[in-house]
Amino acid sequence: MTGNVIVGQSGGPTAAINSSLAGVYRTAKDRGAKKVYGMLHGIQGLLEEKYVDLSDHIKSDLDIELLKRTPAAFLGSCRYKLPDIHSNLELYEKIFSILNKLKIEALIYIGGNDSMDTIKKLSDYAILTGSSIRFIGCPKTIDNDLALTDHTPGYGSAAKYIGTSVKEIIRDSYCLEYEKGVVTIIEIMGRNAGWLTAASILAKGEDCAGPDLIYLPEVPFDIEKFKHKVEKLLTRQSTVAVAISEGIHTKDGKYICELGQNVDFVDAFGHKKLTGSAAYLSNYIAEELGCKTRSIELSTLQRAGSHLASRVDILEAYQVGGAAVLAADEGDTGKMVTLVRHSDDPYQCGTVEKDVHKIANDEKLVPRSWISRDGSYVTDDFITYVRPLIQGDVSPIMVDGIPRHLFMPFKKR
Amino acid sequence: MTGNVIVGQSGGPTAAINSSLAGVYRTAKDRGAKKVYGMLHGIQGLLEEKYVDLSDHIKSDLDIELLKRTPAAFLGSCRYKLPDIHSNLELYEKIFSILNKLKIEALIYIGGNDSMDTIKKLSDYAILTGSSIRFIGCPKTIDNDLALTDHTPGYGSAAKYIGTSVKEIIRDSYCLEYEKGVVTIIEIMGRNAGWLTAASILAKGEDCAGPDLIYLPEVPFDIEKFKHKVEKLLTRQSTVAVAISEGIHTKDGKYICELGQNVDFVDAFGHKKLTGSAAYLSNYIAEELGCKTRSIELSTLQRAGSHLASRVDILEAYQVGGAAVLAADEGDTGKMVTLVRHSDDPYQCGTVEKDVHKIANDEKLVPRSWISRDGSYVTDDFITYVRPLIQGDVSPIMVDGIPRHLFMPFKKR
Repeated sequence: MTGNVIVGQSGGPTAAINSSLAGVYRTAKDRGAKKVYGMLHGIQGLLEEKYVDLSDHIKSDLDIELLKRTPAAFLGSCRYKLPDIHSNLELYEKIFSILNKLKIEALIYIGGNDSMDTIKKLSDYAILTGSSIRFIGCPKTIDNDLALTDHTPGYGSAAKYIGTSVKEIIRDSYCLEYEKGVVTIIEIMGRNAGWLTAASILAKGEDCAGPDLIYLPEVPFDIEKFKHKVEKLLTRQSTVAVAISEGIHTKDGKYICELGQNVDFVDAFGHKKLTGSAAYLSNYIAEELGCKTRSIELSTLQRAGSHLASRVDILEAYQVGGAAVLAADEGDTGKMVTLVRHSDDPYQCGTVEKDVHKIANDEKLVPRSWISRDGSYVTDDFITYVRPLIQGDVSPIMVDGIPRHLFMPFKKR
Repeated sequence: MTGNVIVGQSGGPTAAINSSLAGVYRTAKDRGAKKVYGMLHGIQGLLEEKYVDLSDHIKSDLDIELLKRTPAAFLGSCRYKLPDIHSNLELYEKIFSILNKLKIEALIYIGGNDSMDTIKKLSDYAILTGSSIRFIGCPKTIDNDLALTDHTPGYGSAAKYIGTSVKEIIRDSYCLEYEKGVVTIIEIMGRNAGWLTAASILAKGEDCAGPDLIYLPEVPFDIEKFKHKVEKLLTRQSTVAVAISEGIHTKDGKYICELGQNVDFVDAFGHKKLTGSAAYLSNYIAEELGCKTRSIELSTLQRAGSHLASRVDILEAYQVGGAAVLAADEGDTGKMVTLVRHSDDPYQCGTVEKDVHKIANDEKLVPRSWISRDGSYVTDDFITYVRPLIQGDVSPIMVDGIPRHLFMPFKKR
């Protein structure tokens, strides 16, 4: 490379997103980039010319290791959707004038669906205007819902956190006996795609039965059938564990959390904020069956739990960051780096760049064939898919008993 | 020892309670106990003659290591309060006839306040009736609210989990910017004692500011003052993190969660079930200040998160289990093993047996002098106290990417 590179992070944080940033930084430096800039709070921050020289913040190999172990977006994130090119040309002109001023040769954007839309528009604009700046997307989302890639960095660590935590919660639920049994309902992230909730099956093993029921948003949720299933399970066992996606909904599209009294919020992309489904079902089951119930939301910890990251995930995130820089350096633009699996066992996976136009705004759901016929469990095919992604650990660098992270560039402390 | 030993677990599960069980088992075997029985679901199960021979379940040194890493009560737990001796002599006769049938020489009960009440009553009854069976209590509670002991096994691991998780949550909260700022409220266990919530300060370090406000139940909570503090913080920072105990309450004793619409439950000991304080305050702040808010309950994970256990805690839990058996073998009864700290740095701590009559039903609170004057933070003295308890790690034994636990004696799988 002869010019500079700029990298940004967008959308929801993950435990692996900073490993991709480390991969971008290291490879860009190795390929001769003079400066590697980091936009603060993604494209939104760039528009306000908020960026840092990453060399001021990543000063050693130890910093690279800390960055790989630091959860959530090191550079800050945003949920900003670029307008269509024709509707706001000035905005695009502004972005490109900033990029030109910084002598940017390649822009790497680490994010999910909405972020790939940004890469698509910027690369389109560059082609339209004859700019030589290359734009490459780096996949990132715990939701694992990006098209054309076998899986997304961030998913494996979230899946490992969920499998481990659900196992610990189930173990905890075994302790106390209640006359009419105890039902634990665990709410896991996932609006439309059930990949994360499906990962609760990882709690199952020789030492744990795992969840008894697993409900994904891919299949409409029938609350009556659910009640009967729980009732039947309680006739032969004293403890029932249920994993549900936050996005489960009835046949007519009503979210379960909407059946309760929770207020709806809508974010910048028009997505409803979903929470409270487990609490609603927990109250419902307690009232209907008279048993003890408990609801648990895994909340933001499932995306921020870097202390329990998957080694496979952290290394792949790093590789994908490096591959994005390589692709840009070789002249590619308007592409996203994807992961292509060659084999399950032994697990082998590589990177391939694919046209971002085929990816943006498209959601990959859990295949119907990986969900049991009645929609209350997942199949062995899913386990075969997910198992390699949670393998291996990344030991946190512990300082005084607590994992150390890399100091953020935009926070006082 | 010439006879047999029986051990039980009671009250809320912890990440370290099974390490005490491992210590009891190993020491009892080493001291010549013929059989080491485990009561299933504590004294309540014993009354129904539900117990196992622990040798059938702990068969190797590897099993001992797995047991130390297994969260929640391996033998099952109960919340059963023995009646006063004079009010139900038959019950005591029944317990002792079971113990005599099993040739029990020592009964070790691992639990918290309510469990020490059980040890007190059983040892009193033994003395009253001339029985030679010894009764020793083994402290256990994440709440750290037992009197006469420097701290309780289980607390250190919970504190480490809380410090780490709060740090990850805070890091996550930095990512996205909102015009009017974002306030994250984290609800931590603790009805009357704020030890667990205070441990959120462990998130603070060179790389993280930690929570901005920490509210313990030891000091009445003033919701107006809280709002003004948050408002003031938002004038100089975009992100505010608040850690609260589930048991915070107003000056007139009303729990914050009761201000919302949550239904109250009362358990066998007459304790109210508290949950929803963070959700209530989160809605309150959003309405009053118009900023983005988020509420997170650490829920049962803070007591079951054995994958992030503290090495100091797991080893001390093991020692305490062993010390309980030693004490009984030397003829002690009606005692609880306590931890006595000799120095903070280097940390040195030993065990001493103390009269259970001085412990039972007494709650140790966070000293007022370890809480800031206005009740919204903790002092360095608290940090000096808690820091040694979270040191060191116990690597989980990972099988196929997920921590392995020891197979439970009362579950099919």
